[in-house]
Formats: sequence, structure tokens, C-alpha cells
Amino acid sequence: MHAVRVNGFPCKDPMAVNTEDFFNPAMLDRPRDTKNSKVGSNVTNINVINFPGLNTLGISLARIDYGPLGVNTPHIHPRATELLTVLEGTLYLGFVTSNPNRLFSRVVKKGDVFVFPKAMIHFQMNLAHDKPAAALSSLSSQNPGVISIANAVFGSNPPISDDVLATAFQVEKKLIDWLQSQFWENNHY
Amino acid sequence: MHAVRVNGFPCKDPMAVNTEDFFNPAMLDRPRDTKNSKVGSNVTNINVINFPGLNTLGISLARIDYGPLGVNTPHIHPRATELLTVLEGTLYLGFVTSNPNRLFSRVVKKGDVFVFPKAMIHFQMNLAHDKPAAALSSLSSQNPGVISIANAVFGSNPPISDDVLATAFQVEKKLIDWLQSQFWENNHY
Amino acid sequence: MHAVRVNGFPCKDPMAVNTEDFFNPAMLDRPRDTKNSKVGSNVTNINVINFPGLNTLGISLARIDYGPLGVNTPHIHPRATELLTVLEGTLYLGFVTSNPNRLFSRVVKKGDVFVFPKAMIHFQMNLAHDKPAAALSSLSSQNPGVISIANAVFGSNPPISDDVLATAFQVEKKLIDWLQSQFWENNHY
Amino acid sequence: MHAVRVNGFPCKDPMAVNTEDFFNPAMLDRPRDTKNSKVGSNVTNINVINFPGLNTLGISLARIDYGPLGVNTPHIHPRATELLTVLEGTLYLGFVTSNPNRLFSRVVKKGDVFVFPKAMIHFQMNLAHDKPAAALSSLSSQNPGVISIANAVFGSNPPISDDVLATAFQVEKKLIDWLQSQFWENNHY
Amino acid sequence: MHAVRVNGFPCKDPMAVNTEDFFNPAMLDRPRDTKNSKVGSNVTNINVINFPGLNTLGISLARIDYGPLGVNTPHIHPRATELLTVLEGTLYLGFVTSNPNRLFSRVVKKGDVFVFPKAMIHFQMNLAHDKPAAALSSLSSQNPGVISIANAVFGSNPPISDDVLATAFQVEKKLIDWLQSQFWENNHY
Amino acid sequence: MHAVRVNGFPCKDPMAVNTEDFFNPAMLDRPRDTKNSKVGSNVTNINVINFPGLNTLGISLARIDYGPLGVNTPHIHPRATELLTVLEGTLYLGFVTSNPNRLFSRVVKKGDVFVFPKAMIHFQMNLAHDKPAAALSSLSSQNPGVISIANAVFGSNPPISDDVLATAFQVEKKLIDWLQSQFWENNHY
Repeated sequence: MHAVRVNGFPCKDPMAVNTEDFFNPAMLDRPRDTKNSKVGSNVTNINVINFPGLNTLGISLARIDYGPLGVNTPHIHPRATELLTVLEGTLYLGFVTSNPNRLFSRVVKKGDVFVFPKAMIHFQMNLAHDKPAAALSSLSSQNPGVISIANAVFGSNPPISDDVLATAFQVEKKLIDWLQSQFWENNHY
Repeated sequence: MHAVRVNGFPCKDPMAVNTEDFFNPAMLDRPRDTKNSKVGSNVTNINVINFPGLNTLGISLARIDYGPLGVNTPHIHPRATELLTVLEGTLYLGFVTSNPNRLFSRVVKKGDVFVFPKAMIHFQMNLAHDKPAAALSSLSSQNPGVISIANAVFGSNPPISDDVLATAFQVEKKLIDWLQSQFWENNHY
Repeated sequence: MHAVRVNGFPCKDPMAVNTEDFFNPAMLDRPRDTKNSKVGSNVTNINVINFPGLNTLGISLARIDYGPLGVNTPHIHPRATELLTVLEGTLYLGFVTSNPNRLFSRVVKKGDVFVFPKAMIHFQMNLAHDKPAAALSSLSSQNPGVISIANAVFGSNPPISDDVLATAFQVEKKLIDWLQSQFWENNHY
Repeated sequence: MHAVRVNGFPCKDPMAVNTEDFFNPAMLDRPRDTKNSKVGSNVTNINVINFPGLNTLGISLARIDYGPLGVNTPHIHPRATELLTVLEGTLYLGFVTSNPNRLFSRVVKKGDVFVFPKAMIHFQMNLAHDKPAAALSSLSSQNPGVISIANAVFGSNPPISDDVLATAFQVEKKLIDWLQSQFWENNHY
Repeated sequence: MHAVRVNGFPCKDPMAVNTEDFFNPAMLDRPRDTKNSKVGSNVTNINVINFPGLNTLGISLARIDYGPLGVNTPHIHPRATELLTVLEGTLYLGFVTSNPNRLFSRVVKKGDVFVFPKAMIHFQMNLAHDKPAAALSSLSSQNPGVISIANAVFGSNPPISDDVLATAFQVEKKLIDWLQSQFWENNHY
Repeated sequence: MHAVRVNGFPCKDPMAVNTEDFFNPAMLDRPRDTKNSKVGSNVTNINVINFPGLNTLGISLARIDYGPLGVNTPHIHPRATELLTVLEGTLYLGFVTSNPNRLFSRVVKKGDVFVFPKAMIHFQMNLAHDKPAAALSSLSSQNPGVISIANAVFGSNPPISDDVLATAFQVEKKLIDWLQSQFWENNHY
């Protein structure tokens, strides 16, 4: 651990910085494969984890690809607002507010913009049965984080007690146990 | 709308401020009833909504009462870290991190302190079959907000499309529909 | 002036908010005309000025269209970092640091990402003689502002004293006067 | 110095973090001894100094125990608002504002809440002649700091010139010298 | 109350702003009278209270004049660091840190710079018996506030209970009562 | 690299800090030489670069000396508002706003104060043909940065493409080339 760090991430000597530190060949124009995803979506993150030059700059990106009827399941970004631009296709998307739990949802099409305020639960779904869709999202943090709700609740390691979850979801414990035994895929890279 | 506002909340004329603006007879020493709660818990909030003098001061409180085996179900505070002190009883509590979804959980007893970092999914449960428990939580915002996960996902108004939720939770749509038809109680006041 | 304001911008009553407040039919997929621009570029802003729902959310967007050899001239955003994604074509772009004045420049192509740190002077140019180019930029403020250098220096209203500018640019005052008599187009909308 | 630091405090590798980092067996339910305190009070701090997991989280706690007629003498927290909950007994408490120096004071009892805005001079006193009292305070910083006024003014090391203090307090220098020769106890741990 | 407000202060319509909003004829070059001050000093503030254009800009000024042996008594600025430049004369100045209460003091002369970190108790004194002194201070807030320690403690309105102060200062209550009966001048304008 | 760092700058062990860390013998009362400056001005910075104790404190200073008709050429501070006090002489000064490019300019004299909001292009000029002038500026960051417009645009290393600059300034490329071949002095130390 021999380098200066800011926010826990590396901070290069200013004299050693060069143009490549501000560049990322992210290939954001290219569709990603969604066939191997159980939920039919694939999120490509461009943030401080893989683009260290963004540290302290307060912004990052994600490209989201959706297969036919593919879903980017309900999730939150604990440290960022997300501003989504539809690149291709037609999406049903929305977010749920803090108490009371109002849903603001809508169908949006190519070229439209929609904003998910910081730390609100939100989702998107490709409405087409036969075509992919894609979006480019801007996030107001270099390190937004992501918590997929179903995965965090039913797929954590170790699992949350099924007593807690049975009460929370108003179902039998054996349903909780069954849910916890499923494979909870991470579609955010 | 005749008053000055800061953060959208009222801001009194400094010369009109008096001691009562900084005081709240919150009766935080008194157990709240948990019998009418389906999940067996009751959260009493003391924040800018009912204590306007906290505006801009960056702090608030909540007293949480738990009946026997009562649960404060998985939820997030989008704008606050929560620092919980156990007032009475023994709790099982924890939170789940952003990807990867690690669970940090523990049994805590009277006098112990545990911290839930901002916007992480967390919960508590009273482990006793026969006694109540209680906690006092400090929150790092005068307006922390609360999003109960099960309620926001299955009890929003209007409901989230069951296509999205069936994919997200890897279950049949009819189970989603049944969940959405339940009553989703708000235990945070 | 009958509404609540935050940051000087309108803040709607939470109960009056609806889905359309979070939506903008920005048509960001459609090329804008660059023929009427003297510099050959056209910037379409999506920020709190025309999308009030972004207020307090700390993010905004801009689509930039470039005609053949079109230039988005050197400028700064006083309140935002800019993260640019190339939508179409090949650009020469760069920014200049604070003392010492190092230039970090590069040729970037479709799908690449480049970041301009907050308040640094930056520019882009379409390298193609015969094709348009386009970019989508994310900005880390809902109200980033823009100061085009040549316009602000030579096209302000009223003009800056030519004594100041002749000394600053090391040229004769009559050249300054000639520059100040030109039309300084605003290509940011 | 082999570890990453944030705010000058240690920042563990995320993969090395475990549940105990978020837990503190603070025994906040247990009264502390006040007999050895000249001012009759004892403050137990739970902040980043003894609970490193609070770093960057913006919150901390203090339990305050008061003997009969015990006083938590006038002091400031330079980096935090304090939200006090009375755990036991009856307190006289207050704070003084910036110019003009208005005092906002009040008697508060078990279960009441009172807020001391950031960096204002404040104090509490147990009004009972025969019983202890206690409070639990929430502070809006993981590292609030504390400056006891009398101690800082008369007990600093080295001492402030008595010329300055005689003028400030409008008394003879020999009274200042006598005050500076006293033992100024630190009741904040 | 018909205007937009930000931070509780007026925020002009951008189109109504003019050069005079950014200007203050503060006459900071002119010595102020210190003869009518009991402590021999006079502080002239230039902040958002009398220079509304500073609102949101995070900076303000104060000119401090000292008569022979005049003192700017121990005080804090709850919302600002102070960076002092000596304009004329020789000063003894210092500040006391949070626990432990270390004093950092020094003699400084014309042209020297000294910094008092935010919310620390600090003071200055003119060491000359026969000449005035003066300083220009920069403060890191448009609304720094000032709390003169002796005034706030002994001159508040209404007074703090003498029980609290007798315990805090380790003196008899009658001395406290005598101190509270004095006139506590405000030398900050 | 063996020391703790905050913001990339050294952060001393609190126990090793001493009075000299808060002091700078800046000689801000002494005029600096302006004869060797092509633009007739000389800026002496007192910030975290040469006064490490200012780190995290959010404030810094600059003394600006102007020879007869000397100019502090148009520049921006990317991270600070500047509050200027005229120490000596009469200045013409101003700044240009973001779109639209309005100039707010004025003649100011000894003792006057003028504010340049964060990241706006601003300048000053000594109006006297035969006398020096001087100003003391307060800046709302310990590390404000400075970007002199003409230098950054025409004197960067390596140079910006003359295609970009010819389009931006609406002049022939050979004029750009000539400008880029000049010596661009840095008058900020």
C-alpha cells in the first residue's frame, strides 16, 4: 500500500497523470449479450472501480441491455440519482417513493429521459417480445453502488433468518426457504 | 404560502424563535403498543416532519418497540445512517451490503450499539417469545425517509407490473398477484 | 411568487408530484441541425432549466451534434464534471489543467468515454470532413452552467475594456476591437 | 503506517470487514460513576475514536450521567448538532445563541427530547438533590469534538495570557491567575 | 415575504442582478474608533447580513481594530475558519483545541498570516501600549456567526442559572452574580 | 510515502502539530515587484501548496500587485469564490456570467470590496498611469486553482489544435499559430 489514497481509492501524483487516465474504451455503442441472464438484462458499469480517473469527480455511467421482455429488477443505488436515456426500444419503468409507497411508472421510448431519485427502488422492463432494448444511464456518484432487492433479501451470504423474512413478506417459512435456495444472479458488472 | 422555507420546510424568523422550537415532549421512555401490528413492531419517529426545529440540523431519532418475536422488517433510509442502541431485550439484527450481498448480522442485548450504514437494507427482530424489546435509533439526517422493502415492492400504489416482479423474485405471477392483494401495514409513524 | 422554492427553483408539493415530473421527451436519439451554426455544432441541454424535476438531484445531460469539422469550442462548466460518450463518429477532444497549463487531448471514437473534470477548459472537434458526429454528455449538477471562452471574453455585454484584453492576449487593441465587433453565436441551448 | 486512511482514520479493506466492525458493546444502559467528578457528571462517548466503524457515517453517541445537582458544564461541539433524550431524572438545560446572546433554557424530564444546534454553547444540570439523572445524546458527526468553556479558557496548556482574560472577563488579573491555578477536570471520556 | 429566498436570505431574480450586488464600499482601509470599547477593540463585519450578494458564496470578511493593549476577547465562529492577516502593529493571538485543551499562541506582526480552525476558541491582543493595531480576517462562510465566550456565558438574556456557572467556573455564586450584573459589550458589528 | 494524507495533502499526527503549522510569515504588507511581468501584475498565493496547515479548512489568500496600467488578466478559480479588498490604488475590475455573457464591471478604490463568484471569468486592471495598486483577495478553498484564459488557450503544452482555435475565435489559423508561438507568462506564484 504505497500510494496516496483519496476516498480509499488511488490518487496518482499529478505529474504522473496522463490522457489515458481520463479515457475509457468502454464500447458503450455495442449491445451486450443478455441470453445468459435469467432475468434477461445485462448492466455494464463504468465507474471508479474500473475507471479510476473518475475518483472525486461525482459521476459515472451504466449501459443496460435488455433481451425480449428482459427485466432490470427492482434495485437501489445507495449513493446516486440515475438519469436514464433510452437508446433503443420501448421500456416500462418506474420507482417507488418512501412512505407512502407511491409508484411513478411509465412507458418510455427511444430518445426519452427519465430520472430515478437517489436511493429509491426502481426497475425497467423491455416491453417487446421479439426485440432487444438498451439504455444509457448517468449516475451522480463515481461509486454509486447497487443493491438488487430480491438478491439482497433472498440471496445474501449468509442468508437472513427465515423468521424475519416470513414476517416481512407475510408468507410461510417454507416459501422463504425455497426462495433462499434459488440461484440469485448478479446482472450488474 | 407566506413563510420563508429552507429545504422546503418552514424556517421561522430568528426573532420569533423560542425555547419550545428546540423541545419535543416525545415520551421516548414509554413503550408503544405493538399488538395492533401484523409484524409485531412499532416505530415512533422524531424528525423534521413532527419536530420542525430540526430542519438543517442533520439529525433525528426513532424509538422502536418490538412485541414478542416482533420484526422491524427489512427497510432502508435513503438519506441516513442509523445508529441503534438497545434499550430493552435481545435483538437479532443485520444489514446486507451492496454487491456482493454480504449479510452482517448479530445478536445484541440491552446497552449494545450497532450501526446500519446509509441506504443499506437492514432489519431487527425481538428474539424473546414472551417479552417486549425496545431500541432508540439516531439517524444522520433530519429527514431520513424510510422504504420498507416488502411494502414498497408488493404494496405500492398503483402496483408494480407482476411481469417485473415475477421475473425479479423468480416465482409465478399468481404468487405475485396474491402478495400484491395482501394488506401491507406501515409500522413507521 | 406563491410556490415553495429550493435553490431558487420551484419545489412542488409532494402530493402534487406525478410521473411526468420525472420524465422528459428529450428526443436525444435525433440528430440536431448544425448547418446554421458558425462553429458547426449544436448542444441540446437537458437540465433543471427545462426539466424542473432534476432540482436537487445533482445530474443533467447534454447531446452534442457536430457537422463535418464542427467544433464545440473551448468552454467550462463552472458547477459540473462532464463525462462524454461518443454516439457517432470520431472526435478530437481535450482539456487544459490549472497551472501548469497541460493539455490532455486524444482522438476518440464511437462508444468511447472521456471525462472533463469540473471547471476545466475543454473542447471537442469532429475530425470527419464529410460526416456528422454526436456525443451524449452526463454532467454532475442539475444546473452545470456553461461559459464559452471566446464568447465570454470577446462577446460579453457590455464588452470588456480592450486595454485589458490587448494586454491579456498580447495583441494590438485594434485586433481586440475587431474581435469584439464579430457575432458571437451561442451554440448551447 | 501501512493501512488506507480516510479523514485521517483507518479504512479497512472491504473484504476484511466483519460484523464486529459495526458493533460496540457500549453498555449504554449502565449508569456511570459521578462521585469522582468535581462537577458531578460523567460523559461516555461512543464515536470514531473508540468505534472506528463509524468513520464517514456522520453520527455518534454520548451517555451523560449526572449525580445529584451534577452539571455538564457549558461546552460546544465544534462539528456536531446534539439531540438529547432524557433517560432518567429531571434536567435544567439550555444553549446560548450567537449575537445577540439569547438563552434558550428549559426544564426537561424523562422521555423528553431537546436539540442543541451545532457549535452553540450548551449545558445541562440535574435538578434533583438526591437522585442521579442520565441522558443519551445523538451527535451529527462521527467525530464531534468537545470544548468545555471554563476548561479551555482557564485550563489550557500553556495558559492564555492573563491580560487577555482579565479584559475579557472584566476582573482583576489575580482572579484570573487564581482560576488558572485550579484543577480543570475533563469529564468527557 | 414576496421574494425567493435561499438559506433564508433573499435571492434576486438573475435578470435583476447588477454590478452593485457584488460590490461593497466597506472602507476597509480606514481605522475604526476603539475608544468607546471597554475591551479596546472594534470588529467590522462584511458578510451576508450587510452584503446580500455573498449569499451561497461561502466567504466573508472582518476588519479588526485594536486600541493600545486592546483585546478581541476569546470567541468562536460556529460556521467558519478564520484566516487573519495583520494590517498594522503587533498582536499576541492564539486558539485552544478541543480535548486536550492545548493553546497554540504566538506573537505576529504586520504582514503575517495566522489561521483559527472552524469553531475553535480564539483571541487577539494588541501588544503595544501606545499604538493601535489592525487586522483583516477572511472567513470561510458568508454567515460565520460569532459567540464571544464571556458575553455568552455571563451576559446572556436571560441569564444562565448561577448554580450551573458556579460549578463550571469553580467559584462562589456571588462572584457569578456579580459577573452577570456587569455590562457585556458587543464589539462585533 | 509514509505519512497520513487527506485530500492528497499531508495530515500531521495531532500530537506533532505545533503553533508554526498555523502561521505563515507571508509579508503580505510588502509590495511585490511587477517590473518583470509582461502584463504588469504579480500574484502571491498563500494556500495549501505553501501553507499545509490550511488543508481541509476551506480558505486561502492572494496578494495582487499591479504596476501602472498593470493587468491581472482574465482567469478563473475552478474551486473558489474570490472576495477582493483594494489595499492601494484604483482598479477597473469585473466578471462575465455564464450564458448569457453579461459583464459586471466597475471602478473600485482603496478600501472597497468586490466578489467574483466561483469559476466565473474575472480580471482587474490598475487605472493609474504612474502608480502601483494592490489588492488582498480571500478565496473560499484551501486549494482554489487558477486558469489564466489566454495562457490556457494559447499557451498550453502541448498546444491545442489550431483548427479548434481558429473556429472558436473566428480568425485565420496563422493568427492562432502566431499567438501560440508567443511566450505566455504565469503571473500567479
